[in-house]
Amino acid sequence: MIFGREVTQDMTESVNHQWKLSARPEGMPKHSDFEYAESPIPEPADGQVLVKIYYISLDPAMRGWMNDQRSYIEPIKLGDVMRAGTLGQVVSSKSDGYSEGDWVVGIGGVQEYALSDGKDLRKVDISLARHATFLGALGMPGMTAYFGLLDICNPQEGETVVVSGAAGAVGAVVGQIAKIKGCRVIGTAGSPKKCNYLVEQLGFDAAINYKEEDLYHSLRKHCPKGIDIYFDNVGGETLDTVLAQIRRGARISICGAISQYNNTEGVNGPKNYLSLLINRARMEGFIVFDYAPRYGEAAKEIAGWITAGKLFTREHVVEGLETFPDTLNMLFTGENFGKLILKVAEPPK
Amino acid sequence: MIFGREVTQDMTESVNHQWKLSARPEGMPKHSDFEYAESPIPEPADGQVLVKIYYISLDPAMRGWMNDQRSYIEPIKLGDVMRAGTLGQVVSSKSDGYSEGDWVVGIGGVQEYALSDGKDLRKVDISLARHATFLGALGMPGMTAYFGLLDICNPQEGETVVVSGAAGAVGAVVGQIAKIKGCRVIGTAGSPKKCNYLVEQLGFDAAINYKEEDLYHSLRKHCPKGIDIYFDNVGGETLDTVLAQIRRGARISICGAISQYNNTEGVNGPKNYLSLLINRARMEGFIVFDYAPRYGEAAKEIAGWITAGKLFTREHVVEGLETFPDTLNMLFTGENFGKLILKVAEPPK
Repeated sequence: MIFGREVTQDMTESVNHQWKLSARPEGMPKHSDFEYAESPIPEPADGQVLVKIYYISLDPAMRGWMNDQRSYIEPIKLGDVMRAGTLGQVVSSKSDGYSEGDWVVGIGGVQEYALSDGKDLRKVDISLARHATFLGALGMPGMTAYFGLLDICNPQEGETVVVSGAAGAVGAVVGQIAKIKGCRVIGTAGSPKKCNYLVEQLGFDAAINYKEEDLYHSLRKHCPKGIDIYFDNVGGETLDTVLAQIRRGARISICGAISQYNNTEGVNGPKNYLSLLINRARMEGFIVFDYAPRYGEAAKEIAGWITAGKLFTREHVVEGLETFPDTLNMLFTGENFGKLILKVAEPPK
Repeated sequence: MIFGREVTQDMTESVNHQWKLSARPEGMPKHSDFEYAESPIPEPADGQVLVKIYYISLDPAMRGWMNDQRSYIEPIKLGDVMRAGTLGQVVSSKSDGYSEGDWVVGIGGVQEYALSDGKDLRKVDISLARHATFLGALGMPGMTAYFGLLDICNPQEGETVVVSGAAGAVGAVVGQIAKIKGCRVIGTAGSPKKCNYLVEQLGFDAAINYKEEDLYHSLRKHCPKGIDIYFDNVGGETLDTVLAQIRRGARISICGAISQYNNTEGVNGPKNYLSLLINRARMEGFIVFDYAPRYGEAAKEIAGWITAGKLFTREHVVEGLETFPDTLNMLFTGENFGKLILKVAEPPK
């Protein structure tokens, strides 16, 4: 049988490539923890839409979703498509809320096409920013930074704010919002290039390369009055070192603990937690999903800051769905520089 | 030279016996960390009062004050009288605010007589309760329980509250206030006698003997819906085990960590602290001294509960200033049963 180009094209497009979770990782995720699978592109049932995915967000939280343990969200089941945030376009709708051509962010997963009942979706005005930004400063990382800093830490003008993982998708936005609020901002990152970026491009007051500097003494130098707010993305030694230098009434927002996610010997608890007592301080966790009703408000304010040149965004885009396992691990080795995004297909002009 | 009885009496009364800190303890305090000293009874200068001390409060916090490290209060200097809360009577006043005969609680220290400029003193109506109660439920432990539970944890009717060190001076009041507020209350303690006391005498819903029971499974049994509030006096394993069972929106009040105070290998950090993230929960420290302006309000309400038979108080009184080092260590071995108090002299009828 002979197929012409058009027929071949149709056949290719009838396949949905997917990355499924095939084993629970121990430590750093490996290729063998995932399966690259194909299935037919599904048809939406009544009330559903079919979304073609262009960009996939790769986030540290995905590591936690792979574990079979009680958490704020169900673990991904073995054999299921890897859960992930996505930017895509509605290609077929049987839902009153959505039309073909709508751009939507949602939790489409690591695949080319996703069905949705619309509950996870939010329409976006794609003209407002680069596509990838909708998964970065205008997406979940931006929302996480916004609510985790403003709601949990309530920064006041003149306070000293420390952000770990500051060159990451969340940290970079946290630090810039803290600057907008009139705080002194110090970030930690893992390379001279990232540290330079924090100070020169993002306007941080100082940056500390935790791989090369003595964190305790560098914090002392840059935070001579102590630390009022700590936005923690990394946990481990950094959290402990900051705890030793908090000020009275300090607020610590526990956003994540990327240093501990692949720790097969269990999490290191913060030995200096009694500093909370001495300093009448608070350590609080939050989950961005709880703020879903207020995403619109946050996105509007962040978009305004971007437009006004007050908030700089940077994405690290890697092309090709097939690269997923290796690309994901860039988060844990620190190889990414900017919000890490997997590009699945070239969006229409 | 021959002295008659009266002269001898006068000479004895002109001496102020004192326990001074002579070395920084490593681990559990030893006799050799203290010096039993004598000095003349001082005369108050203008603005000062001289207080004769009858009862001395022995509290876990005293252990922290002996360390030479930055904290919420200056470390006790070597050679200084051990800091401690006291109940006494003004015997000589050159202060407008106090008259001879006034009963006062204050930070008089481990000695028979103390000078004060009045800043640490609070007058009490000695007719309202047993003397020792003014250092217990109506004193610092009561204030600590009141503000640490009500202000930091904001208990709501029907919530599940866990208190560690529940038979201790603070824990017993915390649990009873939580019951008054309509909570389900579970306490941990270190002996069957203490556990029985919590349930039978204080009205706790359940008590767990942490020395004999599997804490994880006992908590699961008694807190089937999880834990909304944890008032922590002990730290260590108990804090970690509770963290694994908190509910969404839980509040943890860090009051102390008696299990860790004599740990020469450093404090064990809570490995399960990421449960704060998953459960959008909060862990907060506080220092009772910050609430000094509101002590009156709290004492009045607690006295009302005592009078109404809603709050039971128990003190463990040991006689004799000279027993101080051994008596203090009863706190750390768990030998005391009720608020531990050192009786220095028989109060006037």
